[in-house]
Amino acid sequence: MNKKKLVDIIVNNAVVLTINESDDIIKDGSVVIQADRILDIGKNIDINEKYQAKRKINARGGVVMPGLVNTHTHLAMSLFRGMADDLPLDKWLSEHLFPAEKKFVDEEFSYWGSKLALSEMMLSGTTTFCDMYFFEKEAGQATKEAGMRGFIGEGVVSEFGDEDEIFYNKIKLTAELLEKYKKNTLISIVVEPHSCYTCSKKILIKLKEYAKENNLLYIIHLAETKKEFDDVKKKFGVSPVEYLDKIKVLDEKTLAAHCVWLNDNDIEILRQRNVKVSHCPKSNMKLASGAAPIGKLFEKGVVVSLGTDGSASNNNLDMFSEMDYAAKLAKVTTLNPEVAKAKEVVRMATINGAKALGMENEIGSLELGKKADLIILDFNKPHLVPVYDYYSHLVYCASGSDVETSIINGKVILENRKIKTFNLEETIEKSNSIAEKIKTA
Amino acid sequence: MNKKKLVDIIVNNAVVLTINESDDIIKDGSVVIQADRILDIGKNIDINEKYQAKRKINARGGVVMPGLVNTHTHLAMSLFRGMADDLPLDKWLSEHLFPAEKKFVDEEFSYWGSKLALSEMMLSGTTTFCDMYFFEKEAGQATKEAGMRGFIGEGVVSEFGDEDEIFYNKIKLTAELLEKYKKNTLISIVVEPHSCYTCSKKILIKLKEYAKENNLLYIIHLAETKKEFDDVKKKFGVSPVEYLDKIKVLDEKTLAAHCVWLNDNDIEILRQRNVKVSHCPKSNMKLASGAAPIGKLFEKGVVVSLGTDGSASNNNLDMFSEMDYAAKLAKVTTLNPEVAKAKEVVRMATINGAKALGMENEIGSLELGKKADLIILDFNKPHLVPVYDYYSHLVYCASGSDVETSIINGKVILENRKIKTFNLEETIEKSNSIAEKIKTA
Repeated sequence: MNKKKLVDIIVNNAVVLTINESDDIIKDGSVVIQADRILDIGKNIDINEKYQAKRKINARGGVVMPGLVNTHTHLAMSLFRGMADDLPLDKWLSEHLFPAEKKFVDEEFSYWGSKLALSEMMLSGTTTFCDMYFFEKEAGQATKEAGMRGFIGEGVVSEFGDEDEIFYNKIKLTAELLEKYKKNTLISIVVEPHSCYTCSKKILIKLKEYAKENNLLYIIHLAETKKEFDDVKKKFGVSPVEYLDKIKVLDEKTLAAHCVWLNDNDIEILRQRNVKVSHCPKSNMKLASGAAPIGKLFEKGVVVSLGTDGSASNNNLDMFSEMDYAAKLAKVTTLNPEVAKAKEVVRMATINGAKALGMENEIGSLELGKKADLIILDFNKPHLVPVYDYYSHLVYCASGSDVETSIINGKVILENRKIKTFNLEETIEKSNSIAEKIKTA
Repeated sequence: MNKKKLVDIIVNNAVVLTINESDDIIKDGSVVIQADRILDIGKNIDINEKYQAKRKINARGGVVMPGLVNTHTHLAMSLFRGMADDLPLDKWLSEHLFPAEKKFVDEEFSYWGSKLALSEMMLSGTTTFCDMYFFEKEAGQATKEAGMRGFIGEGVVSEFGDEDEIFYNKIKLTAELLEKYKKNTLISIVVEPHSCYTCSKKILIKLKEYAKENNLLYIIHLAETKKEFDDVKKKFGVSPVEYLDKIKVLDEKTLAAHCVWLNDNDIEILRQRNVKVSHCPKSNMKLASGAAPIGKLFEKGVVVSLGTDGSASNNNLDMFSEMDYAAKLAKVTTLNPEVAKAKEVVRMATINGAKALGMENEIGSLELGKKADLIILDFNKPHLVPVYDYYSHLVYCASGSDVETSIINGKVILENRKIKTFNLEETIEKSNSIAEKIKTA
């Protein structure tokens, strides 16, 4: 009798969507996890012969796929979910969000709001996210407790207050976060100027210098609305993308969120600089910002990933829904149903997200040696029956609520839709009590 | 001690969204059901004093609202879900759907396909639907077993075959359905020519005459694609809406699905004739058909309801998702975030659906004396926390999977997400086995 190798976890009886280069799908498949990494992937029968597991997780014929990567969020804004809807971005920001943020956003808000958002993400298949908000120390703490893979960055807005003081304070916070998480493999720190219309040229450049010195990603909202495009054009004589290119902050470590209003030259610049894009279709639709030209970006070979934006403008963080919107919005706005095919869209939410965050060697697909970040979906539900094409079902039929189990870095953080790493009830209670204060203020 | 009146069901501890004329919301509320109707609605404390119930259903602080009304479906097409995606409507129909229908659609297909679709609808909050497909006797049987409220009609296409023979056969089937369900309060029969491009003028007119004689709704696909608009214009010199108006088939008992390609005169005709519209945003987006001008239709006072279309072109039947798409598509295509506000969209999926089907005195809102068709949503989930605005959450955050319990005509057909009226496992098994035959053909 052969001696079987003892491993930590085997997920078996799965349809394994690898999202590797050749899009391999393994039916009656298993994924073997040892510590934080994928040790093997194969047919149940072969895996069974080679390994015995401390723990077996039966996918019962469901889909196992890489955890989803949400490249643009504002976690704590979940506490403002539904507070002000059906308004244009500028009015929504200046009359509702900015005043509410000034009044209510503090450490407690950030901690519980982040935890609320993390709960929602864990329950809908996201395993990695990139956040931009304030009091990010608390967002980091919440992420650590959740066991999620997070990119955390302190949002910088320089229009209100002394520019040098703001820069000093934000860099101080960022340096503290870097120090705190330098040995944490799950949490990465990023540099996040809010946009070219809320940050001065000087701040934009200095933050890029800091990012380069520390080898950090530089995340920015870019070309989100026609107003932004027109205002920048009026002020600087060039488009938002051209402006950022002129001041030399665009490169392969820049991740630009939205990118709705792009002219052909803008797209060419994004391609040349190898800028990564976070497409946020639901937020862009709800705020009536427009539709990013993702078909054209695909054609040029620009890496387009997917983001939910914050819950105040979407209003949820379900990446399955975001995939569906990405596909359908691209089709209807070009009147071309062959744009943004299901398989391409699944890549946007997985491997492209990994590329956007510079993590394509670690996450975004199920391959040997990669981090064990994966989710199990229950396909034994009427809205997922029958199956002719798994990609189609993931994009057009599934929702976050079909995710049964989630594993991040080899650790089960969601099992049978129960969060294993923190107390969800407490998070909901605290969130409701903070909202009560906001409502009665 | 007062004598309390004994009633069948009390749903208590709910946030009751009535969707009545004044949009009343009753917190800490209860709904009292006696036989098939709503007997009373009020605060828990008042209802408790007046009634005792054979059965109490605790909504645990969740939302209770009218069951959703899906005014355009092709039930059995769920068995083709995901078989052919990312294609334009004409290619999808002529190269994939029509050949597959010819080959595979029969009594068994219609029965199990309908049951599969009904399962999905029951699990996502729909209580009333309007179906157009073939072998509708089987769809009717499935509907009867499910306990849903359904409008069933045999789809008529006259382009393949002898016109008179087709008319004779379809009227025969319709007459049989009318006879079979004449005493059934849940199932209504309707007349359904597929469209003005698949039915001859003669058939369109004769079907309208039959509908009038029998006081039945007349359901038709209308102005779905630019191709249809252009072809009809070329052939008849007028738009599709103008053509149907010219042959006098448009009136208050006509329900037109899609209505994407409308000129101003078309909209004026729809208003004048009091035609009801079934807006199908997800199908229109996926097939890249375009965006119906629902803001303009609202302004004119046209009744716009919501439909999912069939699962082969959407690809699911979740009316909560359909609401979200309706709101967001209208905003992004007009670049106006104030179009299709959450509250309006909830009305589209409830009372407007009832109006579209001529049932506004019976369903579509929770009011005394109306039929007891209602759903209970669990709001104790992170993606629905906190709540500032219930309408916003229903449109922008909720999904069909938040529906816990569903009551139709006073009967509990879904409880804690379990279907009470038929065997779901069997339906899934049979659906999978039919799909296997299709795959291997």
